[in-house]
Amino acid sequence: VASAEIVAIGTELLLGHLIDTNSHAIAQALAGAGMDVHRHTAVGDNADRIAAVVSEALARADAVICTGGLGPTVDDMTREGIAKALGRELRLDDESLSQIRARFKRLGRAMTPNNERQAMLPAGATAIPNPDGTAPGFIVDDGTRAIIAVPGVPGEMRAMLERNVIPFLVERFHLRAVIVTRVLHTIGETESAIDTRIADLFRAGINPSIAVLAHAGQIDVKITAKAPTLGEAHSLIGQLEPQLRERLGDCVFGADGESLEKVVGDGLRARSWTLAVAESCTGGMLGEMITRVPGSSDYFLGGVVAYGDDVKAACLNVPAELIARHGAVSREACAAMAEGVKAELGSDVSLSITGIAGPDGGTPEKPVGLVYVGLARADGSVEVRTLRLVGDRELVRRRAALAALTLAWKATRAKEDGRPSATATQR
Amino acid sequence: VASAEIVAIGTELLLGHLIDTNSHAIAQALAGAGMDVHRHTAVGDNADRIAAVVSEALARADAVICTGGLGPTVDDMTREGIAKALGRELRLDDESLSQIRARFKRLGRAMTPNNERQAMLPAGATAIPNPDGTAPGFIVDDGTRAIIAVPGVPGEMRAMLERNVIPFLVERFHLRAVIVTRVLHTIGETESAIDTRIADLFRAGINPSIAVLAHAGQIDVKITAKAPTLGEAHSLIGQLEPQLRERLGDCVFGADGESLEKVVGDGLRARSWTLAVAESCTGGMLGEMITRVPGSSDYFLGGVVAYGDDVKAACLNVPAELIARHGAVSREACAAMAEGVKAELGSDVSLSITGIAGPDGGTPEKPVGLVYVGLARADGSVEVRTLRLVGDRELVRRRAALAALTLAWKATRAKEDGRPSATATQR
Repeated sequence: VASAEIVAIGTELLLGHLIDTNSHAIAQALAGAGMDVHRHTAVGDNADRIAAVVSEALARADAVICTGGLGPTVDDMTREGIAKALGRELRLDDESLSQIRARFKRLGRAMTPNNERQAMLPAGATAIPNPDGTAPGFIVDDGTRAIIAVPGVPGEMRAMLERNVIPFLVERFHLRAVIVTRVLHTIGETESAIDTRIADLFRAGINPSIAVLAHAGQIDVKITAKAPTLGEAHSLIGQLEPQLRERLGDCVFGADGESLEKVVGDGLRARSWTLAVAESCTGGMLGEMITRVPGSSDYFLGGVVAYGDDVKAACLNVPAELIARHGAVSREACAAMAEGVKAELGSDVSLSITGIAGPDGGTPEKPVGLVYVGLARADGSVEVRTLRLVGDRELVRRRAALAALTLAWKATRAKEDGRPSATATQR
Repeated sequence: VASAEIVAIGTELLLGHLIDTNSHAIAQALAGAGMDVHRHTAVGDNADRIAAVVSEALARADAVICTGGLGPTVDDMTREGIAKALGRELRLDDESLSQIRARFKRLGRAMTPNNERQAMLPAGATAIPNPDGTAPGFIVDDGTRAIIAVPGVPGEMRAMLERNVIPFLVERFHLRAVIVTRVLHTIGETESAIDTRIADLFRAGINPSIAVLAHAGQIDVKITAKAPTLGEAHSLIGQLEPQLRERLGDCVFGADGESLEKVVGDGLRARSWTLAVAESCTGGMLGEMITRVPGSSDYFLGGVVAYGDDVKAACLNVPAELIARHGAVSREACAAMAEGVKAELGSDVSLSITGIAGPDGGTPEKPVGLVYVGLARADGSVEVRTLRLVGDRELVRRRAALAALTLAWKATRAKEDGRPSATATQR
């Protein structure tokens, strides 16, 4: 299999002024085309250091894709660095120069002399035209290895990648292998628990491979298949996925681009249930997540952010006496919040969250991270879960919102209980 | 000057499944400490390739910081790769093992055997405890060069970086050259307007340098100064900052780590005003942003997410007749929502948002991106702003929430109008 390396060029990257999203985009495109990538490197705007990185990469890989450092200013040294690595001179590319001139003319701007530098390419290079900017890219192919340079401006880089670089690589290296991935999203289990369930199926470096990825409060299991055709890659995944799903059981809520809030929304719509939410420590995060989904107005009525205890009493009819006895962070308050918002907004089901997100406000009995999430069902039953969450304020809040959504997700899947009463579904 | 390299480990990076934000964060921290960084490398979860990258980096730099691949699963190979590069064995670190065990016990979860792998460190390594997760980091210092490994989970990585890694490097390499940055945050002006105001002060590559950075709905102006000591760097910034602030005028709401929601909260607290919010298209995002700030319960009472029109009528007393005449997305509805939530929750001031976030729901007269934000003041006056926002659903919603916060920020700064009435401030 042909292999490539990615070299991102720019002192801004080394100083941490920019996040390197270009290497990510190039990596995705190369993976999709079936080219192996074993290394990314970022290096500053220094001709000698660029030359060293490029030479080393060319010794390991069939193709090296460089991004950045092609602009007109004195600190854009990629052309010089690549020429040095290849032992070639820089020569003026007339066609590129006239394209740069034409662009300035079209935009009605004066062309400063430094822009001419952008038409200097290593001897023997083929220019890649840049319809979105001034700096052309280029390809140098010495018959053994290819070195490709594209600009660092993300839009210009992506356009060249798609239009020129990937088609060139596919033809030049007879790429046939296709990589297809499938991600199963799980909720409610730890990374190690997931890992234990599928450990014997594990096969890093085997095709298809399996990887376990932890996000905030959510664990993904990713299958990656490589095959000569798209059909064969999908077929490889199709053979492994059912086995994995069986092992993982009912913690899998969706696949690929599906989010928990989307899956919950689909479930609510399928059951014709409307939803309302009552939030305390999450301050609106649960509602915000639910309404990220376009079309969520089909099932989401709204909610009450009851941050202060008075609001819990006034807007959610949580008895002040209940709060006085059990506290605003309690199973009892959580249940009353869910019931209150369901009655107030007239929804079929409702979710509630109350807890201590930190960093302050914890006590020995009710420490930071103690969160209750509640679900009130159409049949009048209420379920409350107690969570002891770890992480900073943001993570505790996110995990709390995910746990509340998980309750709703399970309710939409429940076979027996959790059914709305006949009247409630007729609204 | 001592130099460092950053090595990000994870096949996910090479496949383009993840953006490497960790290298960016480490680069920022190293630049701040005055350590030169000449190269970043990303490599997959393969012990031999990790060993090769680490050996090469150690041959060039005084310190190598690795991130990722320290988890419990079989594809976490960073420990093995580093041990190989150093020619040392992996040994069980008892202290780390007992910390991992204690963590599982504290969380009331069963510890699976694969978690023990995380306590295996190269011989002679010093463990870095991980209060936020299970995998410890470690430092191996052979007297000449230092190699440091931290987890790939961003929160865990950042905590170790700040608490352990940077202090270690400062002491170990007697770091003295210091880079200090100061970021001025602005709101309500475009990037080109900001650029025009300060164009003649502009000095990329000069010390201190100035850069203009655009985020979603917010423009930052960044001053970067480099000097032998912290005092001198701060003094360089201190000479330039007042000039910049004068040019930028009253669109500067804060500096460095300050967020608009934090500044609004400080302003509310200073005025002893309480705040309530009524949100439609943002679905809870405004409340979520306000409550990101620890201690926001001092001034934030809560809110109503009035996603459905019935909720606007039932919970916010927006007359159904008003919605029928002007629509739920209208100046009139926005004003009524602000007044309604202020009355309902008994706050001093309130904010409201109603609009069309898209992608669907737009009409020729009320297109996607049309958003109204409102402020109701303690004196009974109401202000509504009409916004025509661009961007996808998420960006429209974020810009709408920022615009609402901007109204509150201006109200807390207003000299004459916007004062709460005497009764309202005595609550």
